[in-house]
Amino acid sequence: MAKEKKLVEAITSMEEDFARWYTDVCIKADLIGYTSVKGCMAIKPAGYALWENIQAELDRRFKETGVQNVYMPMFIPESLLQKEKDHVEGFAPEVAWVTHGGLDELQERMCVRPTSETLFCDFYAKDIQSHRDLPRLYNQWCSVVRWEKTTRPFLRSREFLWQEGHTAHATEEEAEERTIQMLNVYASFLEDVLAIPVIKGRKTDKEKFAGAASTYTVEALMHDGKALQSGTSHNFGDGFAKAFGVQYTDKNNQLQYVHQTSWGMTTRVIGALIMVHGDNSGLVLPPRIAPTQAMVIPIRQSAEGVMDKAVEVKAALEAAGIRTALDDSDKSPGWKFSEQEMRGIPVRVELGPKDVAAGQAVLVRRDTREKQIVPIENLAAVTAELLETIQKDLFEKALAHREAHTYDAVTYEEFSEIADTKPGFIRAMWCGEEACENKIKDDLSVTSRCIPGEQVHLADTCICCGKPAKKMVYWGKAY
Amino acid sequence: MAKEKKLVEAITSMEEDFARWYTDVCIKADLIGYTSVKGCMAIKPAGYALWENIQAELDRRFKETGVQNVYMPMFIPESLLQKEKDHVEGFAPEVAWVTHGGLDELQERMCVRPTSETLFCDFYAKDIQSHRDLPRLYNQWCSVVRWEKTTRPFLRSREFLWQEGHTAHATEEEAEERTIQMLNVYASFLEDVLAIPVIKGRKTDKEKFAGAASTYTVEALMHDGKALQSGTSHNFGDGFAKAFGVQYTDKNNQLQYVHQTSWGMTTRVIGALIMVHGDNSGLVLPPRIAPTQAMVIPIRQSAEGVMDKAVEVKAALEAAGIRTALDDSDKSPGWKFSEQEMRGIPVRVELGPKDVAAGQAVLVRRDTREKQIVPIENLAAVTAELLETIQKDLFEKALAHREAHTYDAVTYEEFSEIADTKPGFIRAMWCGEEACENKIKDDLSVTSRCIPGEQVHLADTCICCGKPAKKMVYWGKAY
Repeated sequence: MAKEKKLVEAITSMEEDFARWYTDVCIKADLIGYTSVKGCMAIKPAGYALWENIQAELDRRFKETGVQNVYMPMFIPESLLQKEKDHVEGFAPEVAWVTHGGLDELQERMCVRPTSETLFCDFYAKDIQSHRDLPRLYNQWCSVVRWEKTTRPFLRSREFLWQEGHTAHATEEEAEERTIQMLNVYASFLEDVLAIPVIKGRKTDKEKFAGAASTYTVEALMHDGKALQSGTSHNFGDGFAKAFGVQYTDKNNQLQYVHQTSWGMTTRVIGALIMVHGDNSGLVLPPRIAPTQAMVIPIRQSAEGVMDKAVEVKAALEAAGIRTALDDSDKSPGWKFSEQEMRGIPVRVELGPKDVAAGQAVLVRRDTREKQIVPIENLAAVTAELLETIQKDLFEKALAHREAHTYDAVTYEEFSEIADTKPGFIRAMWCGEEACENKIKDDLSVTSRCIPGEQVHLADTCICCGKPAKKMVYWGKAY
Repeated sequence: MAKEKKLVEAITSMEEDFARWYTDVCIKADLIGYTSVKGCMAIKPAGYALWENIQAELDRRFKETGVQNVYMPMFIPESLLQKEKDHVEGFAPEVAWVTHGGLDELQERMCVRPTSETLFCDFYAKDIQSHRDLPRLYNQWCSVVRWEKTTRPFLRSREFLWQEGHTAHATEEEAEERTIQMLNVYASFLEDVLAIPVIKGRKTDKEKFAGAASTYTVEALMHDGKALQSGTSHNFGDGFAKAFGVQYTDKNNQLQYVHQTSWGMTTRVIGALIMVHGDNSGLVLPPRIAPTQAMVIPIRQSAEGVMDKAVEVKAALEAAGIRTALDDSDKSPGWKFSEQEMRGIPVRVELGPKDVAAGQAVLVRRDTREKQIVPIENLAAVTAELLETIQKDLFEKALAHREAHTYDAVTYEEFSEIADTKPGFIRAMWCGEEACENKIKDDLSVTSRCIPGEQVHLADTCICCGKPAKKMVYWGKAY
């Protein structure tokens, strides 16, 4: 048992130091490796397989709504970045600049894209002529660069992977509809596939995307009570169109500006997966996103019939559509259990000589560690059902956690006390003024997370200044 | 008919100007758009859908051989790039340099990866300890940058998309085996999926990859008789391992250097698809890679029953697993035919009122334009079979073209005459000296394409210097 212990002990417990626990899981579950490139990580096979599953699920959902994939250049000439005033102000301080190509200095320096609104606008200005060309519903999968000072795996790194959708529409209404449609795609993806409950809402003007008319967000609560912005959808109105001259002739042969949206989700959601579901034994993956859903672990695998039966069980599970692996390495069973738990594989199938003799296997849930003995002829069916149960239970558990960590405040005193002592979301009324957001941030390190669509009237006055309240807002400390 | 004519006339014929024909197809088939970023293209939905299919097919084949996907940073610190002498000499003149992050100058400049050997080596040096960690079979899908002076869509652009596999092995033999295995994956992918016949062989030392012990290549012949290197697989021996200190402890507890390989295929192969199969009406896509395999085009679509039947036919084809689209726009049928041909969709299903009345449809092959009248109840089965036939015929046609444009030369006079007058591959003997390659290149603008595994003894002496010949080589003008 010494060896198994070691593997588990190597993780800091989340109660002791959540930040260290998080990094430990990233490393010990083999999701990432450090590199010699400051602020950039290597995503290892176990981490990248998660991203591949996320990509496949999201991409399918995008395409169902008519979205097509394209690829734009990774460089943005400085003059192009500067065309939209708010946008360049927001991004210029955090971009990487290319100044030389080969041995020559460039005539105009270019940044590595931090996001591609400018490139899509430049493209659309040439690509769109008539109302027949609309809507344009394009998306790209790529990496982007933002020169962050402090970085953390998945949550904040100088380069990260994402998708960015960019659409152009004839009318304001269509653009708003698409903005909300994609927000809903993100929300249902997070809830149905990643088992992460989200609050959908609009960002305040202070927190919105540089250059957007409005930004919508899905906010999730992590296990430590901090919020994570998990996907955003922006309505640009015709601001970018005017800056870049993206126009079309309408049915009456009049020139009109298009209305645009953009929306993105990043490798950050892998961080959310870790921090919502993980525990002190490591990662806990919802079955729908888990690259491996069941791990078969033979006990006393050299005993007669054990390995044969393990291979047979693996084949039966795979035939039932369950992504299954078999750990036939020469490590001890306990060591294998620890590894399977660290990697968050949703169920383990233990199979020893006694089980083989009895025609049964032991099925262990990763999330609750509950065990059940199952006749081998029922194993595939029981496992398939168990995976569905785990998926549902993980969502319910995360939802209960969020509900238990969502507080309402009516006075600034209440608000301050919650902010200081109770990690979680705080719901409170707001007057709509940025001054109050700034004061709250300065006093309490709490930011407005979103103005939810589902409003609850908690009080008549702003939590901060006491003036008449306009909206109920979710507040919190955020990653 | 005026409108249809216009669409077709807009392409330069390949006999008149092959280079312009190529660019015309890229634009008119909607594969790419130009951007404000010099030397970089926008890949539009029709172009990107091809890349998605290429990715899916290759990725599946890689994974069948045990390869796992990862993601490494896009930046390489200058000191890391310089660790392997030949490698930095080969790539430094053509990289883009990042010198500033945000508002600050970097302490050490970094290039945008032109290829990632250095990053993988740096990673493997930390990641690999014991013989139990071997082999490492990693691949990544990403974009890379090479600062080319003259660029052409897909064939040569400053940024391009590719995959790069990087493996580490315990022995020289295993590394060589993997190098050849991946070369064979490329060859069978090109032949079976893209219907492009290839010559497999080894590059001469002059033409090999910067830092490789040996480079293998698959070479294809384009319609204009020029060669295109379509995929390469490199064996690095332990050269990189020594430069980066990638070592493992073997079973006897001795420190050993790993042996490495890398192998890549790029968006270039889309250029090959165009130039091998295209004709003066546009793109011709092999069915296995075509995003849309059948286009249903109603004739007199407002006539009673036509649209209903068209929708029914589309559903029937889709049910048979055929990727089908229906052009129900208000363009004329002739215009729709031209568009479908320009986009290279392998078969067209024409359906007019008379066809509906007779319970039939007209099936037209894109490659030969052959028509057949098919009873609607047989349509799905006939189309599926026709797609297989087209796939096979395109390969056979390309193979016959290559064979008709492959010439043997025994004297330098013959060699020169063929090089000057007959576009294609030239097979000729070579002494093994770089001096002869240089002379041939200077005299005739012809380069060694590869030393094929299947050798034919054409003569005893080198085509150039007359000294004893070592190998038969494929020569040609190349993209």
